[in-house]
Amino acid sequence: MDAKSPSQSCTTLTDLVLPSETNPLNNLFGGELLARMDRAASIAARRHSRRIVVTASVNHVAFNRSIALGSVVTIEAKVSRAFSTSMEVFIDVWIEDRESGARSKANEAIYTFVAVDDMGLPVKVPAISPESKLEKDRYDGALRRKQLSLVLAGKMKPSEATELKAIFEE
Amino acid sequence: MDAKSPSQSCTTLTDLVLPSETNPLNNLFGGELLARMDRAASIAARRHSRRIVVTASVNHVAFNRSIALGSVVTIEAKVSRAFSTSMEVFIDVWIEDRESGARSKANEAIYTFVAVDDMGLPVKVPAISPESKLEKDRYDGALRRKQLSLVLAGKMKPSEATELKAIFEE
Amino acid sequence: MDAKSPSQSCTTLTDLVLPSETNPLNNLFGGELLARMDRAASIAARRHSRRIVVTASVNHVAFNRSIALGSVVTIEAKVSRAFSTSMEVFIDVWIEDRESGARSKANEAIYTFVAVDDMGLPVKVPAISPESKLEKDRYDGALRRKQLSLVLAGKMKPSEATELKAIFEE
Amino acid sequence: MDAKSPSQSCTTLTDLVLPSETNPLNNLFGGELLARMDRAASIAARRHSRRIVVTASVNHVAFNRSIALGSVVTIEAKVSRAFSTSMEVFIDVWIEDRESGARSKANEAIYTFVAVDDMGLPVKVPAISPESKLEKDRYDGALRRKQLSLVLAGKMKPSEATELKAIFEE
Amino acid sequence: MDAKSPSQSCTTLTDLVLPSETNPLNNLFGGELLARMDRAASIAARRHSRRIVVTASVNHVAFNRSIALGSVVTIEAKVSRAFSTSMEVFIDVWIEDRESGARSKANEAIYTFVAVDDMGLPVKVPAISPESKLEKDRYDGALRRKQLSLVLAGKMKPSEATELKAIFEE
Amino acid sequence: MDAKSPSQSCTTLTDLVLPSETNPLNNLFGGELLARMDRAASIAARRHSRRIVVTASVNHVAFNRSIALGSVVTIEAKVSRAFSTSMEVFIDVWIEDRESGARSKANEAIYTFVAVDDMGLPVKVPAISPESKLEKDRYDGALRRKQLSLVLAGKMKPSEATELKAIFEE
Repeated sequence: MDAKSPSQSCTTLTDLVLPSETNPLNNLFGGELLARMDRAASIAARRHSRRIVVTASVNHVAFNRSIALGSVVTIEAKVSRAFSTSMEVFIDVWIEDRESGARSKANEAIYTFVAVDDMGLPVKVPAISPESKLEKDRYDGALRRKQLSLVLAGKMKPSEATELKAIFEE
Repeated sequence: MDAKSPSQSCTTLTDLVLPSETNPLNNLFGGELLARMDRAASIAARRHSRRIVVTASVNHVAFNRSIALGSVVTIEAKVSRAFSTSMEVFIDVWIEDRESGARSKANEAIYTFVAVDDMGLPVKVPAISPESKLEKDRYDGALRRKQLSLVLAGKMKPSEATELKAIFEE
Repeated sequence: MDAKSPSQSCTTLTDLVLPSETNPLNNLFGGELLARMDRAASIAARRHSRRIVVTASVNHVAFNRSIALGSVVTIEAKVSRAFSTSMEVFIDVWIEDRESGARSKANEAIYTFVAVDDMGLPVKVPAISPESKLEKDRYDGALRRKQLSLVLAGKMKPSEATELKAIFEE
Repeated sequence: MDAKSPSQSCTTLTDLVLPSETNPLNNLFGGELLARMDRAASIAARRHSRRIVVTASVNHVAFNRSIALGSVVTIEAKVSRAFSTSMEVFIDVWIEDRESGARSKANEAIYTFVAVDDMGLPVKVPAISPESKLEKDRYDGALRRKQLSLVLAGKMKPSEATELKAIFEE
Repeated sequence: MDAKSPSQSCTTLTDLVLPSETNPLNNLFGGELLARMDRAASIAARRHSRRIVVTASVNHVAFNRSIALGSVVTIEAKVSRAFSTSMEVFIDVWIEDRESGARSKANEAIYTFVAVDDMGLPVKVPAISPESKLEKDRYDGALRRKQLSLVLAGKMKPSEATELKAIFEE
Repeated sequence: MDAKSPSQSCTTLTDLVLPSETNPLNNLFGGELLARMDRAASIAARRHSRRIVVTASVNHVAFNRSIALGSVVTIEAKVSRAFSTSMEVFIDVWIEDRESGARSKANEAIYTFVAVDDMGLPVKVPAISPESKLEKDRYDGALRRKQLSLVLAGKMKPSEATELKAIFEE
């Protein structure tokens, strides 16, 4: 399997915030945003692997800005790194000002998906070759995040998480 | 107001077909697709006009291919022509094959939106300058479709629909 | 198959506008109304044909009046004309004033459905015999609309659309 | 306020059973049917009283027959009796056979609504004059059901429920 | 089958009232509450019987207090009495004050479920041994409610409803 | 403000998996589970703080087991540690076997919420006193997770994350 670039899996989901998707403060409900990001990210992972994919973990989501009722929200998802059978997907969430057209970052999230066959068994996926500076940074960080996830889950000893240790030993 | 190109309003909504959005044949429910296209098209009209927009009419929707549960559906909406306070929006709907990654056209639709101010009164919108061959064809057809809509609604006499008459007199 | 009257397929869907079905202006969201009309019209087509039916096209929808949160909305759908395997359905949308009980027309739409067998293949449907003046007018207009749809889809030459040409030659 | 007939409040809600409204056995989910009946019945109560109405109680719902995915369901609601500020509404639920067109009763339910003003305070509603035999039977039974509801809620002594006592003393 | 206590089937569903679940007065929509109670009660019946269960009837629901948007609602469901193949389930609905943390009763409801096998045929369920005073009162009342339901449905003569007659003869 | 125990904020949301909440493999859709966990966890944070709360981040979610259509899912959320104005909430997700009644762990997640006043400004929350062994472990880990989140967001230098460094220096 040839390596692919992150842009080959790039998925854009632009949609409105309707009243049925808000919390009592009239902002996009956190759970609804988590669900939308999951859908967009799963499409990116599927485009990369051309396989059925299932959500393995949500690694990090920061809700930096609330998103008001009536906003136009753009979710962009790209595979940032592929491991043997899993893919880390970065999700950037943007909102745009109606009058100026300017768009600004609202949130960022990282999800992990596993590619499976029809029986639900994990299958190998193509590697990723990052191209832009941002893609390279996210690619480099992915191994540390993977080790971190294994350490937190008790599946890897901290002493074996070499990439992660390096950060704290600088 | 300077004229804008159709690509400046281009809006992409890529999403999955989930079980809650299907009809009893396990295909995307027609009403759900109509609603998704309405959301994407209204964002395109808003991006063109930078105004609040409301759906004025659905001019034509052809359901050529059914879209199966689990499909990845991409809706692309672009303003095709602007009149004084209204905008015609073309919507192309694509599905993609999971294994090959090839995408194919599933549907096409035309909606019209009106830009309004905070009081709900119509306001002027920028003109459109089409660039590609397809954008020019859609731009040219828009006037005929507008006349047709007025004739069908009894708001214009057939004899005054000069653009439309021309088609049938060739 | 004996011809049937439009009233034999008449379908009434009276329902409320709840907060989850509104746009940010607190009116019934266009996409939700399109979906409700699709459900009511598909039942009318099914009652006429006693077959499974699928939406073939939305021919025209005019959003003349916005419908406020809390309104009582009545959708009435009737088959206006049947062709070999397809049916044109007219949909009238009414709202009623709570205090006076008076009802007024909010929207009108035309959808087309095709009757299919269990394999999804088109099957013949009974003809329509219009009875009231309005039913007759809609029946007469249906052939022009069908030709128009074929012309717009590039499946019929304008010169062959005899019913349609007649309008513009008067 | 003049008395009204039950047919003046008659409300018909015909709709499909879509996959998002089913239980794991692929039948209409009980909770969804309860919600649909509540919407139809509240419209009937509003048509009778021309007031804002709120659900006061669900007096009885029998789920006699399951309603399969893809069914056409018709809910008919009519005010059966009005008391000072409250209205009892009878709801009949029908399904129809696609091939024969025959319709059969699936469920029956009784809800009670109270009419309120803008402050939420109860207001008087017109009386009901039943016309058909069925309407008269339901009208007569309503007082017994009301007494029963008060007895069960501990708001009336059994000995004072004269209408109800009569049934058991025969 | 050994008898079980009501607490063995106790099911708690604590959730928010989101904007998509409200009526035009910004309170929890009656139909949504009926649906949530149906879900919680069906889980209680399933826990008691360890069988597939279907809703047989809603015996009584009193909407005593409206529940505002943003409220935390706790639904508690417990089997109150088991008959041969059916179970009566009591549902208590509580809301809590955000600032004081105090909780107060908002509604009460009684639903009946039947346990079925894979073919949908009724199957026997364990008996109930009530423990607390409240559980005993509800257990005692269940037989009267069952007779009442049969009388109202015309399936039992009032003279045979011995438990029920006793109330009115005191 | 007196410290509170985690059990004082314990929130239980037991519900069914209905067809409208599944993915194409007929399992609970990841996005829907994320949304349910967000609702339960926000109630736990609100019960601890008695304030309006907003989701600040999702720190970790592992989807260990898929949850089939028709399952009974119990989500239990408890505040694990409170910082000045924020609260870490642990969420355990359980499913239960219908026939045996045995319950097993399906997922685990960690969310962070911030308490705000009516203007949306952060406000102080009570401290947490863990009681059980599990509560103490989670309390101890919370500071490491907080430092980690700050390091990953570039808001803290790795060298200052003393708690975190300690793990890797063992």
